[in-house]
Amino acid sequence: MNKITSKVAELLSEVRNTKPLIHNITNYVTVNDCANAVLAIGASPIMADDIEEVADITAISAALVINIGTLNNRTVEAMLSSAKKANELGVPIVFDPVGAGASTLRNKTTQLILKNIKISVLRGNMSELSFIAGLGATTKGVDAAQSDIKSKDGIAIATSVAKKLGCIVAITGVTDIISDGDCIVTISNGNKMLSNVTGTGCMSTALIGSFCGATKDYFIAAIGGITSMGIAGEIAFEKVGDQGTGSFHIAIIDAISKLTQNVILERAKIHEA
Amino acid sequence: MNKITSKVAELLSEVRNTKPLIHNITNYVTVNDCANAVLAIGASPIMADDIEEVADITAISAALVINIGTLNNRTVEAMLSSAKKANELGVPIVFDPVGAGASTLRNKTTQLILKNIKISVLRGNMSELSFIAGLGATTKGVDAAQSDIKSKDGIAIATSVAKKLGCIVAITGVTDIISDGDCIVTISNGNKMLSNVTGTGCMSTALIGSFCGATKDYFIAAIGGITSMGIAGEIAFEKVGDQGTGSFHIAIIDAISKLTQNVILERAKIHEA
Amino acid sequence: MNKITSKVAELLSEVRNTKPLIHNITNYVTVNDCANAVLAIGASPIMADDIEEVADITAISAALVINIGTLNNRTVEAMLSSAKKANELGVPIVFDPVGAGASTLRNKTTQLILKNIKISVLRGNMSELSFIAGLGATTKGVDAAQSDIKSKDGIAIATSVAKKLGCIVAITGVTDIISDGDCIVTISNGNKMLSNVTGTGCMSTALIGSFCGATKDYFIAAIGGITSMGIAGEIAFEKVGDQGTGSFHIAIIDAISKLTQNVILERAKIHEA
Repeated sequence: MNKITSKVAELLSEVRNTKPLIHNITNYVTVNDCANAVLAIGASPIMADDIEEVADITAISAALVINIGTLNNRTVEAMLSSAKKANELGVPIVFDPVGAGASTLRNKTTQLILKNIKISVLRGNMSELSFIAGLGATTKGVDAAQSDIKSKDGIAIATSVAKKLGCIVAITGVTDIISDGDCIVTISNGNKMLSNVTGTGCMSTALIGSFCGATKDYFIAAIGGITSMGIAGEIAFEKVGDQGTGSFHIAIIDAISKLTQNVILERAKIHEA
Repeated sequence: MNKITSKVAELLSEVRNTKPLIHNITNYVTVNDCANAVLAIGASPIMADDIEEVADITAISAALVINIGTLNNRTVEAMLSSAKKANELGVPIVFDPVGAGASTLRNKTTQLILKNIKISVLRGNMSELSFIAGLGATTKGVDAAQSDIKSKDGIAIATSVAKKLGCIVAITGVTDIISDGDCIVTISNGNKMLSNVTGTGCMSTALIGSFCGATKDYFIAAIGGITSMGIAGEIAFEKVGDQGTGSFHIAIIDAISKLTQNVILERAKIHEA
Repeated sequence: MNKITSKVAELLSEVRNTKPLIHNITNYVTVNDCANAVLAIGASPIMADDIEEVADITAISAALVINIGTLNNRTVEAMLSSAKKANELGVPIVFDPVGAGASTLRNKTTQLILKNIKISVLRGNMSELSFIAGLGATTKGVDAAQSDIKSKDGIAIATSVAKKLGCIVAITGVTDIISDGDCIVTISNGNKMLSNVTGTGCMSTALIGSFCGATKDYFIAAIGGITSMGIAGEIAFEKVGDQGTGSFHIAIIDAISKLTQNVILERAKIHEA
């Protein structure tokens, strides 16, 4: 057990004690799972995406999560408005560039946000991060392919993007990579069934947002969100075996809601690279 | 067992026998749960929110449910259009002012609806109803805090708002309070885990809508919807224990779908205050 | 076991081997279930509905699914744009005219799509197909009534619409009817509880889309999608019995994810009429 693991475990308790309000502007595919994941980890979700209210909602929130899974002109404007308010007030922003690389609209929106907004944590899969790093991307849907990450490339991309943007970068896959531009952490929790349920990436992002709402250490928050999701996947699989992806989906939420400091201390596979 | 409990039990059978069509204009976070709750109680859901069709849909429906959980300019217009049609035709309207008090848009929309539309049942948590009563509110997300209701204050607020608006008011919390401006009923069914799943408030509102579709007695309908949700929460907890909030979520829908007259007669904790 | 059943079983393996990308423009009520059904059958879902990106997304997809369950002006434009791109590139389109007959907007949109777009498979319930056939319709919500299909009428309607539109027509009900305008197949898999969960029709359509992404034989694809859903309903009911509609809902996804060639060969009740 290393120091980072202890910090993650302590941060979980902080989330559960302070119940930070997390503003999510997200997609309509996985929004219910995101709200339930935020509640399960101990924070409090609010979903609001209209330009006339997002700044108000961000202003009372402890963190803002932006996910472009089903973006449109109306919501992109709202994302920018809330993000500007967040930057003004020092509210951390977690950004999930779902499907970056797959369409001009997603590419332009990703670049627009990264250019105009100071984000705290950027989380995506290898395909999305490759696009952001300027390497192109082959998108095969928006659910992570298990094989799309090579550890060495991932570390190089995470470090380079983190430095360039001045934020925490998390690339999720079989092994997750988190970089603040300087330190690198890899996480090897998880279960391969996680890629057979839609929204496990979005939920990871929402969990990172929940952790960000309870600390100023966004590196630990990013590690916390991703480790929590990975451990939940392991426990879910132990519980339901291969009953199928419906039961596994529900067991993930169960596991997040039952997560404790001790479970993190016993199960986290966090390595400093 | 009191007279109200009997009426609620009978109304459940009426819903199951007549399968009223319930038009829901609701949020995209919990819409699937609302549709499944309406089906589970025995009614028939239809979701439609475009200005060009909402009046048509309301015109063939037995009740209209309006929920501002993820409102925007487009849907607010649709809410007003369908609500006017409902008023014209005598279709009952159940209104859930999600997050009233949390943003200017939600406040303005709530006031716009309450000023221009005759609603049959207003359901919210203490924070939302305090705002409507003109007392201000502290919103901590949109999922009810367990502790945010004081029975005495709640009764005063429910009565005053019910009188002012000429409708049934239901304030949900640890103890639920329902008033028609004259009579007061409190309900003490439920389980504290209900606040750890998103959408249990929205589902209560959708259930009230389902009951309103099968009677002209909206006071009984409001009591029926809230009692059904509370009992479902109890049965769900008895079934899944503390497996987690995912299993509890599914067990709530199970319990609604298995609800019978007898279960209501045995379990309802409805008190005339 | 007939030849069609063998082809359906083989096509399932083809879907699982090739993991086709399926572009869904669908409603926000059942979108999560649709995405999870597509993943469960072995394909890869992408949901995108903005006019600025739908053509891009369709262009990289193996099939396009259009579902008008919660249509609006913005999404109708996007549907047309992506459908035109699909026609241009020979990407098959599966169309689900949810609630056709229930509002002028749904009627106009259905006719607009059928007039301007060449679709591959049209799937609906008897009420929706009656409207399309020009026979009028009585819509009772958007979830299929168990009794709304008479086999003879259904066969006549399916054949006539299939001939007129030059596409595969699938009418789902207690007995499902699939016609290419010439051959007729009926399927008698399924369980009556399927109509108590919202979105089982939408999921059937999404499954047809998944099968279409792996073949040029859209007749077999339509039969495959509907047979898979029916068998999943049977297995789900065998697993959860009458625990309730929440558990049944989850068990449907489980069963889709566990479906194999052998299960199809053993259970399919496909009859050539």
